[in-house]
This record gives sequence, structure tokens and C-alpha cells, in this order.
Amino acid sequence: MIALRFDGSLKIERDTPAPRREGEALVQVISAGICNTDLEIVKGYSGFHGTLGHEFVGRVVESQETSLIGERVVGEINVGCNECALCLSGDQRHCPSRSVLGIKGRDGAFAEYLSLPARNLIRIPDTVSNRTAVFIEPLAAACQILDQARIDRESKVAVLGDGKLSQMIARALAQTGCDLTVFGKHDEKLDLVLKTRGANIKAEKIPLSNTSGGNDDLAPSVKGRFDVVVEASGSPSGLSLASGLVRPSGTIVLKSTHHNPTSLDMSRIVVNEVTIVGSRCGRFQPAIDLLASGAIDIEPLITATFTLEEGLPAMKTAAAPGTLKVLLDTNL
Amino acid sequence: MIALRFDGSLKIERDTPAPRREGEALVQVISAGICNTDLEIVKGYSGFHGTLGHEFVGRVVESQETSLIGERVVGEINVGCNECALCLSGDQRHCPSRSVLGIKGRDGAFAEYLSLPARNLIRIPDTVSNRTAVFIEPLAAACQILDQARIDRESKVAVLGDGKLSQMIARALAQTGCDLTVFGKHDEKLDLVLKTRGANIKAEKIPLSNTSGGNDDLAPSVKGRFDVVVEASGSPSGLSLASGLVRPSGTIVLKSTHHNPTSLDMSRIVVNEVTIVGSRCGRFQPAIDLLASGAIDIEPLITATFTLEEGLPAMKTAAAPGTLKVLLDTNL
Repeated sequence: MIALRFDGSLKIERDTPAPRREGEALVQVISAGICNTDLEIVKGYSGFHGTLGHEFVGRVVESQETSLIGERVVGEINVGCNECALCLSGDQRHCPSRSVLGIKGRDGAFAEYLSLPARNLIRIPDTVSNRTAVFIEPLAAACQILDQARIDRESKVAVLGDGKLSQMIARALAQTGCDLTVFGKHDEKLDLVLKTRGANIKAEKIPLSNTSGGNDDLAPSVKGRFDVVVEASGSPSGLSLASGLVRPSGTIVLKSTHHNPTSLDMSRIVVNEVTIVGSRCGRFQPAIDLLASGAIDIEPLITATFTLEEGLPAMKTAAAPGTLKVLLDTNL
Repeated sequence: MIALRFDGSLKIERDTPAPRREGEALVQVISAGICNTDLEIVKGYSGFHGTLGHEFVGRVVESQETSLIGERVVGEINVGCNECALCLSGDQRHCPSRSVLGIKGRDGAFAEYLSLPARNLIRIPDTVSNRTAVFIEPLAAACQILDQARIDRESKVAVLGDGKLSQMIARALAQTGCDLTVFGKHDEKLDLVLKTRGANIKAEKIPLSNTSGGNDDLAPSVKGRFDVVVEASGSPSGLSLASGLVRPSGTIVLKSTHHNPTSLDMSRIVVNEVTIVGSRCGRFQPAIDLLASGAIDIEPLITATFTLEEGLPAMKTAAAPGTLKVLLDTNL
């Protein structure tokens, strides 16, 4: 089968065998999305070698759970060992021995087929299109914030960053009716935020840089004013800015991963008794419900669609400034 | 009156007027404790000039609330503006315009008299001795952890640091019956931890340094094993070590304040979905209850007692390695 693989360099391979691991289901990939994590793997950060991709929609073609065969599914990307205390408590997402689709120890979704345990697969309703279903995994990560921080109509919430994850976060949080401000540095992406359907969102320019520190330039109208600040800028300066935006006893939800150490004046966190919550993946069902009900209009986030064979230019487009989501249609 | 003051240099002043601010109570100080914050102010970190000291027990000598006169009291050290949204919600501890006894905009307790609003003063029961009552403020800060993190008999908890704050934290947390390990680098202080009355505490040596980073040396028996890690080491390397000790989805309670930026691999916090909770002051009542009931044996933490006139050598002793709490008896 064709697969977009990374082994130190990125390449299209045409004779990769279709994977099916013992006891797992084989899924024919329909469409997959390129995530910043994929771009970072290609920069060599995580050390992963293999088929990339973890955001997908597909159709089950082989499974011991025969009721799944033929079903259109998305998949939880973490596969735990099923033996440790965390897995036995139902939390395979944090299993220290886990493999992660297209990220760690397991070939991913930029291929004609992928393998995942049947328990990881979730049927999706007919009302969710393929182009929309690809967003379920990252939208679940956005919805996870609602499981971790208390956000309601009374909350003043800031989102730092205007990239594709921030766009999804803004759409998910806006459902609560909270007072929401998105801070970013790209005019056209901030404009897109303002077009979010049915939501009351403000958008403001803010200086985000590749160096840590520097929240002393914040305007008094925003400094220390937010109950919850979601840091999803992907910028090393984001956490410091977030610590300047959040109110005393407020919460920073941290979505950005940097592979360089972040420098922060932690005494500000202690003195203001701020809570920082690390946030990665989320439950799929809330994301599926949001998309199935049409509450969230996600297709405007698609910048371009390529075929799997066009994987190399697709990755290049995904890495270009101004791009939001790039899809790879495999077996559409 | 005599006062131990800092104005760029530390000195005993003999002719400082006794303070009584308009509308506040005047308290004759009986005894006061030297805290690391006092030592840091003398290093010039916070910019505070004035009479030092914020841990005290005293007797009310003047107040518009006449029922308070003659009462033995301790005092909440934060004085809010009483006008902002935080103050009006009952949270003067985080008022952005607050003064703080002996720390910010308000003369402190290393003096014969101090001034605080009557609403800040709390009567203490006769069963709490003066030497013990001085610990109420820092013990309240230790008990605050129990308001911020869920700790019970089933919890595995680590405390990083073996100094006086860590000793109080260990004693407060041990009341829950949790499985508690204190990590420090001083044999004699770890021995003192093990002598905590009625508690089941383990003590382990750990490398704490003045540089950030470096948790890869942690033994597999402790790495990622703790539900809650309290970082009270006062060491720049403490937070990184804490992030290595805490389990996925666990909580780090951050007590240490450094005036230099802390460097941390925040992607570990995101991937493991760890929560970091900044923790400063706490409610006094739980600390008073613990001391009044005799549940906590705090006097072994007193290394030395000086008179107020001996303030300069007392501060020198407080800063010496191996010292725990130093008291200044003023009007005993």
C-alpha cells in the first residue's frame, strides 16, 4: 500500500505492507488530517520513525468484532498495555508503555490502511461528513478543556493563539456562552475567529515571540482579567503571557508543547495562587456530538485537500504560514 | 519603640514610633518568627523597606472593637483595599492593591507593636502557647494544600524539601493518613521528619541543586509514582524534580518562590496532563485547630530564641545552614 513515512527523511513509500496487528482491527483510511505534531516529528523532535498521521476517518475492513466490519469509524490514538494500574483503571491514554498512532511505536493514518484495537474505534453518525470527521480527534482535545476547567456563562476566558487548534478551542468553548477573547498575531486568522457561527467572541492582536518572558507590555484592560486562559499559541512566550492575563486564583490550561524548556517566573504562579493544567487528548463523544448536531462549523478551517500520493507537497503546505488544516484524502 | 528594620541594610531602630493606622487595632507583639521571606527581603529581592516580620502572636491594646482589647491574637497578614471585586468577594489575600504585614507597604511584627485591621485578628485559645502560636501563619500556609489538592488515606504524597516549611507541610499532610515521603538533602532534618508524632512518613535523600532541570536521575521506585508532589524545596531544580516524581494526571503543589525564572520542560506537563497549583497563604482556623488539639508537635522545629534587641544575630542564625525556626521574643 501507499504510505507517507518518516525515517529521518519524509517519503512516499509504495510497497509498505498493510498493517494488521494480532487481535486488532484493520481500518481502510478514508481521509486524514495533518497536525502540528506531524510537522514536529519531521523536524526530528520525537524520534518517531514510521508512517505519520493520527487524525483520521476510516472504514473497518477486518476485525474479530464482526459488528464493526463495514462501519465508518474514528479512533482513540493511545493504545495502552492493558496490564498496568493506569490501563486497568481505564486510563490507557497515560499508560507509560502505550503506543500512539503515528507518534510512538505504531504506524499511523497517512496510509491506505491502519491497525488499531477494536476497543479504540468509535462509530460515527451519518450526519458527520468525512471532511468533518477528521476533526474529531483534535476537537476532542479542545473539548477536554471543558472537563478540566470550570467554564460557564459567567466566565471570562482567553485563548492564546489563532492557529488551527486555537480555532477549534474557541469554537468548543464558545458553546458555553462564556465571554471569550482570542489573542493572536495573524489578521486573517483572527478574522476567521470572529466569523465563528453563533458565538460571541472578541479577537485581539498580541505580541507572541519565540523567546520566553515579557508580559509587562499587556494593556491594563486585559492584564490579570481572565478566569481561564488557554495557552495554545505554540510559542515559547505564550505561558508567560498567559500568567500575565490570568486573574489571581485563576486557571491556565496549557495546550502548547515546546521541545525546548520554558522559562517562567514561577513566583507569580505561587503568589497569585494560579493553577496550571496540562491538557492533551480528550474524550471523542463530546466532539462527535458537537459536529453531529451542526453546532460547530468546522469546514472553514480546511485550507487545502491533497491525495495521499501528494503527501510531500501536502506537508509543505501544512507547514506554510497562514495554513490551517490540510487533509489527505486516501480512499474517498 | 524598638524595631528590626530594613532600608537597604538591616538595623535595630530604638526610636520608631508605635504604629496605629486610622481605624485599625494596635497589637503589642509577644513573639515573632523569622521566615525565609524575611531573609529574602534582606537580600533585596522584593524591594520592601520597613519593619520586617509577619509571623506573630500578640495582645490587642487599642481597637475600636473594644471586645478585642486584651485578647491574645494572631493576624491574617494581607490587608485588601476593601473596594475591589476581589475584596468584595471576601478575598483580600489577592487584592492587587493589598498591603502585606512586613512584606509590602506595611510595617511588620519584628517590633514592640504592630497595626492591623480588627477584621484581620483572630483570637487564639489558651491551649495554644505563645511559642506555638507563632507557627499559626506558616502552618496555615501548609494546611492550604489540603484545600487545593485532594489528599486522603489512599494518596501517595511526596514533599520536596526538608526545611521548616516542608516540616510543617509534612506534619499537616500526615494528619490525613496518606502515604507520605519527604525528599531532602540534610540528614538531620530528614531525621526530624521521621520523628513526627503519630505519622507514617518516609524520608529519602534527593539531589536538589541551584540549577534547573535534571530529573532523569530519579530511581524507578519513585519516578512518576506520586499522586501529589508538594514542591517546597526553595531550590530552582525542585519543580523539574517534582515533574519527574508526579504520576500522569497527578498534581504538583508549588510552594517555592524563586526570584529567578524557572526553566521547565512544559511538554512533560502537557503530555502527562499534570496540574500545577500555586499555593501561598491559607486560612488560620485549621492551623489553630491542629495546634490547639495537640495533634501536631511543632516545638521541635524551634532552633533558637532571641530577644528583639538581638535581632541582628537572630537573622544571622536564621540564615545559617541547619537552622529551622528562629523566634524573636518581644514582650514575653
